[in-house]
Amino acid sequence: MHTLLIIGTGKSSTYLIEYLVNTALKKNRYIILADINTEIAAQKAKNNPHVQAVAINLHDEENRKKIVQKANVVISMLPAFLHAVIANDCLELGKHFFTASYESDQLRKLSSQINDKDLLFLNECGLDPGVDHMSAMKIIHQEQAKGNEILGFKSYTGGILAPESEDNPWKYKFTWNPRNVVLAGQGVSRFIRNGKYKYVPYHMLFKRLETISFEDVGDFDGYPNRDSLSYRKIYGLDDIPTMLRGTLRRVGFCQSWDVFVQLGMTDDSFEMDLPNGFTKRMFVNSFLPYHDEKSIEIKIIELLPWVTDEIISKIAWLGLLDDEELPMLKGSPAAILQVILEEKWKLKPNDRDMIVMQHLFEIKTENGYKTIKSSLVCKGENQKYTAMAKTVGLPLAIAVDLFLEGKIKSKGLQIPIYPEIYQPILNALEQEGIIFQEEEIRK
Amino acid sequence: MHTLLIIGTGKSSTYLIEYLVNTALKKNRYIILADINTEIAAQKAKNNPHVQAVAINLHDEENRKKIVQKANVVISMLPAFLHAVIANDCLELGKHFFTASYESDQLRKLSSQINDKDLLFLNECGLDPGVDHMSAMKIIHQEQAKGNEILGFKSYTGGILAPESEDNPWKYKFTWNPRNVVLAGQGVSRFIRNGKYKYVPYHMLFKRLETISFEDVGDFDGYPNRDSLSYRKIYGLDDIPTMLRGTLRRVGFCQSWDVFVQLGMTDDSFEMDLPNGFTKRMFVNSFLPYHDEKSIEIKIIELLPWVTDEIISKIAWLGLLDDEELPMLKGSPAAILQVILEEKWKLKPNDRDMIVMQHLFEIKTENGYKTIKSSLVCKGENQKYTAMAKTVGLPLAIAVDLFLEGKIKSKGLQIPIYPEIYQPILNALEQEGIIFQEEEIRK
Repeated sequence: MHTLLIIGTGKSSTYLIEYLVNTALKKNRYIILADINTEIAAQKAKNNPHVQAVAINLHDEENRKKIVQKANVVISMLPAFLHAVIANDCLELGKHFFTASYESDQLRKLSSQINDKDLLFLNECGLDPGVDHMSAMKIIHQEQAKGNEILGFKSYTGGILAPESEDNPWKYKFTWNPRNVVLAGQGVSRFIRNGKYKYVPYHMLFKRLETISFEDVGDFDGYPNRDSLSYRKIYGLDDIPTMLRGTLRRVGFCQSWDVFVQLGMTDDSFEMDLPNGFTKRMFVNSFLPYHDEKSIEIKIIELLPWVTDEIISKIAWLGLLDDEELPMLKGSPAAILQVILEEKWKLKPNDRDMIVMQHLFEIKTENGYKTIKSSLVCKGENQKYTAMAKTVGLPLAIAVDLFLEGKIKSKGLQIPIYPEIYQPILNALEQEGIIFQEEEIRK
Repeated sequence: MHTLLIIGTGKSSTYLIEYLVNTALKKNRYIILADINTEIAAQKAKNNPHVQAVAINLHDEENRKKIVQKANVVISMLPAFLHAVIANDCLELGKHFFTASYESDQLRKLSSQINDKDLLFLNECGLDPGVDHMSAMKIIHQEQAKGNEILGFKSYTGGILAPESEDNPWKYKFTWNPRNVVLAGQGVSRFIRNGKYKYVPYHMLFKRLETISFEDVGDFDGYPNRDSLSYRKIYGLDDIPTMLRGTLRRVGFCQSWDVFVQLGMTDDSFEMDLPNGFTKRMFVNSFLPYHDEKSIEIKIIELLPWVTDEIISKIAWLGLLDDEELPMLKGSPAAILQVILEEKWKLKPNDRDMIVMQHLFEIKTENGYKTIKSSLVCKGENQKYTAMAKTVGLPLAIAVDLFLEGKIKSKGLQIPIYPEIYQPILNALEQEGIIFQEEEIRK
């Protein structure tokens, strides 16, 4: 009998836990759900005799290791910076380790020890990173097997609203960690296009947009995201002339969001400490030039001449131009903005979120050039059963299931870029309705 | 006989050393010039029997303390991050300590021990910080003594070229640490104007300009600099409605420099690692959107519509649009840009630099309102005897001289904001031609 430990049982683990719990009896597995908050874990255990909810205190080494010791396989759904401590326990106690997060330098340092102990530490097995790697590598390997050459690869992902729930002027609500959304794109984005290196500073990012279209759900703005250059090596496409990874938002979102970026309202580098009575309107005004008479609205348009009345009305809809006291007076501009946005961009119980992902390949064949467009659209059910939780949780759950079934045999520190791992996971995801539509265009 | 130790004897110490060396015999003082590079120290010692040049190795505690032990007073002209190690030695060995750098948190932690040992640790006694504090506090105290209220204080400083040496289209050359010039303004600038808090992100800074005029040397662009808010407390003006400190550049410089800021070419947060043969023109292009046909010049103007032909020609003058290999392929964009600029913005032997400083006070008197404008213009002699070295080095030299003469009696951790310190220094600076012109305008 295998014992599986899932650490972190919050909203994003819903699908992951259900998938594994549903077959626990049949597959004779025992599942331990561990959370700082036992109540949340207990709710998910649902009195299933094969499932146990426990409290875990990460700072209490004895408590933590006692729990890890009970399992054969550990899945960490904790925030990424907490993975290392669990990974170290797993290495020490000889447990396999799975996450949906980026492989960290801390984990890379353990690589040879993981091999020595014949363990599998599989990371980047969620949506992005995860499904993006798997679905892209499948096409890359398939084309390379035909003797074709990949000349360009662009890949965009977005976690947004399903069209039927786009009921505010931003056509956006938080469907994932709001802090990450507010800070998205900070730093310098790097990519290569037709052999030209491109570096985009944060304050230019939301102006460097490309339209990405989906047959069923329409057009989106894509902006480049982080360090695309490093994926050339990961994907074995070291000399590819075009490599770009990006993020998708509904058309129009980025230009409006750019007002906050331009004004400095997403800055997280310093703490404001504002006096009592400081209003939302004063908060916006503090990022604008002083003027004796001009209104905030006029000053925004004078400073950012591309701002339209529609954009101003979107900002107004958020309450940012109201004479109402700020809900938070101390914190970075980004933290204060986040609290204001959370009020307005909250999912309603029946709101449906949506994941969109699109890969665009430029390929040279012996008969000329072709384009492959591979698109995924996945809609959530409601506020609880989100497409985000589904697409992040299911790949990970399936990977663990396949590993325990002996259908994934790889060991060592891995990400899902080899057919032995990605092929069975992609097959199982199709059974769950996570299906890419491929379109090939000959030129 | 007093012994004075000056650590760091490079270009910026020229005036400081000469001022103290010139009276060493007469005042029966002994001066030790310490540098990592003994040759530089030896040149400045000029075979004066009261001056000794020694090599100092900051990493060798024994060597370092042996040198510090010999002195009564230590002046550190090292880069700011190296002050703490010398300050600790001074505290341990009971030596007075002087710098022209900002008082650091590390020093603040030593404050009560400095008091206990009855030592003077005087920081911020150069130009900016230094002369700015002294000249401003003189007016603040003078007006407060009359019962007047300071309603506004703006203070701008620039280290630039004298008009007769403005012989390139930028009207600018490096007259101080080039790295600091390239990175100037990064972070968020904070100030208050007519009671309104203002926060300016770096990418907006060079658009938030104010014209500052000097009778003899014309107009400059001033941009807000760092955290002006913290000066309210330092200057004892906690409730002042307007407080702004800024930097001056010749009119037009900021708008052209803003091209580099907007494109991300002053970014110091990541390392580029460019292939051999990468040219200056490709470097600029790497910050611009990709286009099959459009030229770099056209792409700059399309991305930044306010860019004029004159600005493009200024960028071209720097060689940045040439098909010539970069002088450096690995480094942050800021570091690579700096190397390119250093070739072009180098002072010629007879070039004269210039320091401009202007304080603007808004004052409420019992008979109404008035403005005080207090301006300093100081020109250098040539590439060696710069106004920068003079205005940074002389206040510090004078402070040490006055302290050894018993004319400054303060002890503890200090900056020059009290009359006992600033009054005699300002008087002595006037003897050296560093004179503020005051103008009072009744409203």
